[in-house]
Amino acid sequence: MASFCKNDSKPVINGDILLGQIKRLSEEGLDGSGGRTRLAASKDEKKGRDLVVGWMKELGLDVRVDKIGNIFGILPGVSGNLDNALMMGSHIDTVINAGPYDGCYGVLSGLAVLRAFKEAGVIPPRPLAVGAFTDEEGVRFQPDMLGSLVYVGGMPLDEGLASADGDGVTLGQALEEIGYAGSEEPGFLIPSEYLELHIEQGPRLDAEGLRIGAVEGVQGISWWRVTIGGKANHAGTTPTDMRHDAGLAAARVITSMREYAKDSDTTLATTGEIAFEPGLVNVIPSKAVFTVDLRDPDGEKLALAEKALADCLNRVAEEEGVTVASEHLANFAPVKFHPELIQKVEDAAARRNIPSMRMVSGAGHDAQMMARVCKTAMIFVPSIGGISHNPTEHTEKEDLILGAELLLDVVLDLLNG
Amino acid sequence: MASFCKNDSKPVINGDILLGQIKRLSEEGLDGSGGRTRLAASKDEKKGRDLVVGWMKELGLDVRVDKIGNIFGILPGVSGNLDNALMMGSHIDTVINAGPYDGCYGVLSGLAVLRAFKEAGVIPPRPLAVGAFTDEEGVRFQPDMLGSLVYVGGMPLDEGLASADGDGVTLGQALEEIGYAGSEEPGFLIPSEYLELHIEQGPRLDAEGLRIGAVEGVQGISWWRVTIGGKANHAGTTPTDMRHDAGLAAARVITSMREYAKDSDTTLATTGEIAFEPGLVNVIPSKAVFTVDLRDPDGEKLALAEKALADCLNRVAEEEGVTVASEHLANFAPVKFHPELIQKVEDAAARRNIPSMRMVSGAGHDAQMMARVCKTAMIFVPSIGGISHNPTEHTEKEDLILGAELLLDVVLDLLNG
Repeated sequence: MASFCKNDSKPVINGDILLGQIKRLSEEGLDGSGGRTRLAASKDEKKGRDLVVGWMKELGLDVRVDKIGNIFGILPGVSGNLDNALMMGSHIDTVINAGPYDGCYGVLSGLAVLRAFKEAGVIPPRPLAVGAFTDEEGVRFQPDMLGSLVYVGGMPLDEGLASADGDGVTLGQALEEIGYAGSEEPGFLIPSEYLELHIEQGPRLDAEGLRIGAVEGVQGISWWRVTIGGKANHAGTTPTDMRHDAGLAAARVITSMREYAKDSDTTLATTGEIAFEPGLVNVIPSKAVFTVDLRDPDGEKLALAEKALADCLNRVAEEEGVTVASEHLANFAPVKFHPELIQKVEDAAARRNIPSMRMVSGAGHDAQMMARVCKTAMIFVPSIGGISHNPTEHTEKEDLILGAELLLDVVLDLLNG
Repeated sequence: MASFCKNDSKPVINGDILLGQIKRLSEEGLDGSGGRTRLAASKDEKKGRDLVVGWMKELGLDVRVDKIGNIFGILPGVSGNLDNALMMGSHIDTVINAGPYDGCYGVLSGLAVLRAFKEAGVIPPRPLAVGAFTDEEGVRFQPDMLGSLVYVGGMPLDEGLASADGDGVTLGQALEEIGYAGSEEPGFLIPSEYLELHIEQGPRLDAEGLRIGAVEGVQGISWWRVTIGGKANHAGTTPTDMRHDAGLAAARVITSMREYAKDSDTTLATTGEIAFEPGLVNVIPSKAVFTVDLRDPDGEKLALAEKALADCLNRVAEEEGVTVASEHLANFAPVKFHPELIQKVEDAAARRNIPSMRMVSGAGHDAQMMARVCKTAMIFVPSIGGISHNPTEHTEKEDLILGAELLLDVVLDLLNG
């Protein structure tokens, strides 16, 4: 029992409300494919924002929106000093055709922790906050984790607002349109700790039968857009050895990078987007544009993977007689979370006799941005089959509730510390 | 001198008018990329059709349009029997971002031959006709060579008219809209011979320093649309060996089919179109859709290439844990032209001391459809660098004129025969 709580008023997670809010939020942006699509600052994401803000206000939280659209709900503490706040959070934007949990779970669990305090009538010794960061997924506006990146000063506000989607609409315009261009300066509330609860989005906890991951850090991410220039020509008349086939060259790069990843213990390489021009069945592609997503928990290994990609592009350019150009879309070095907080997550699981493991996050998270400015850690719960960014993304209800309870445990531990 | 011509009235190609009409037609549908786009039965193609019909009427030809939109200009002969006509032709629709010659050259050269008779005041012993067939390229409506296919009875008229573009507009609707849904029954004029003059669209004549190709036939074409089904998942959290990556599987098929083509003397394999779903940088593709264009002059070898594709798909499906499905978009067996007509082309070149060669067409042509119903041959002129289906497609002016002169030579030879 936290020393600041009366014996009869321990904050407790209300699992029913938490699960109900997750379900309700998951219904915004249903796209008819079994999933939902709430791209950052879209009309559908606005509906999600309105829901979350409504729930924050129901709890009587002090709701603030900053100039990059990040939303915060603040529960004042005995000490009113925001610099000493403890923040939880994540994001509520989604990829296209997403599952129900990614991001939303962390925001709504943070809200569940604040609700636990309110319902128990316990005033925390210092302020508690929950944040929902803008454009974590990076689908509509690049780079990903844009809202938290700007929040911690990693990108100037103007640059973040000027990021444009495929139709040329800037994030700034989109936020104005949905009414979430707030007045707070990003970074107005730099907490002393940040905790983010999230589904693993990978298969390890599920495969090993564990229920909690104490996340030690986030692997490095390097995103590239590659453009290969070949020569359009007739598919029926151009001998194989006279072709400069941009599409074939792209396919060679994709298969080569898969071989590189296969030979590595830790490096991942993915091509998720591709287009050929002119894009006709009987015309050899003159142009191929595709992305390469490289990841590794180790910065040096990530750099080696980038070099492997560059070498592969040069080799294919020479062998196929094509031109290659690559643009670095995003680049995040591996991040290490705070040892003290990681330990507290592990301890909290042990106190409940919950099997846990330390692990590195494969996905990027807002926590890796917050780690630049405060003590940070993450808690993972299992994703069944490791599936995420997919409508079939699933985490068992008892694990969703357990995760929120553990988040509350760590918050209580930190407030007592 | 043809025996039916008076000594002072030999028909002669007017090269200036021919080149001028090619240039004028190439200006319809300019797409701002250096090329032109006149997809079948589009508004831009209508402008091309109007030009050609106008030029036919200027020559006093009997202009007929059939129910699939094919246009014919007929010059009556001494004998009025259409069954005994000699037809020339090609098409005026283009691929996206096309060069100036493909198709148009054959139609306008046929017109130049008829003009030569008119200007010389020579009435041919039997009718001469020039045809412009609908949707040869097959970009907007599948299959390609649709107009000539329907014309020779290879596809029912209703089925051809029901072929729909990507927006669901049928060819029948499109022809109504542009005013080219004619009244003639397709096949109303089955000639005794069909001659098609065309740029080679391949590099052989240019590479070998020859000016005329006597085309012996057309290689077989087999078009496939392949759909690979994988599992969407997070690019950062899914271990390489747990992926079911539809995009990687597609890349493997593309590179495998290129290896197959490399190992073959004659088979060509091309992937010109591809798309991944959901199409996001950080999501493993759940779906990849791409085309495969297979060609071989030999029917048995083409069947082997189809089997190689099927085997490759099955192998990749098993190794990557993905599903595969393939749809046969078009299938044309290799075609052999008429030995007598091929010989007449070769003889005509020899009489002018023009270096020529016999060759197989790499591309599909309306002539291969007409070969089902009458004696048929084609004449090729060089494509510089073998480039076609590209704004930089080029044939020297003297070769364009020479080709038309040779076409006239063969016509005169046949009329005398």
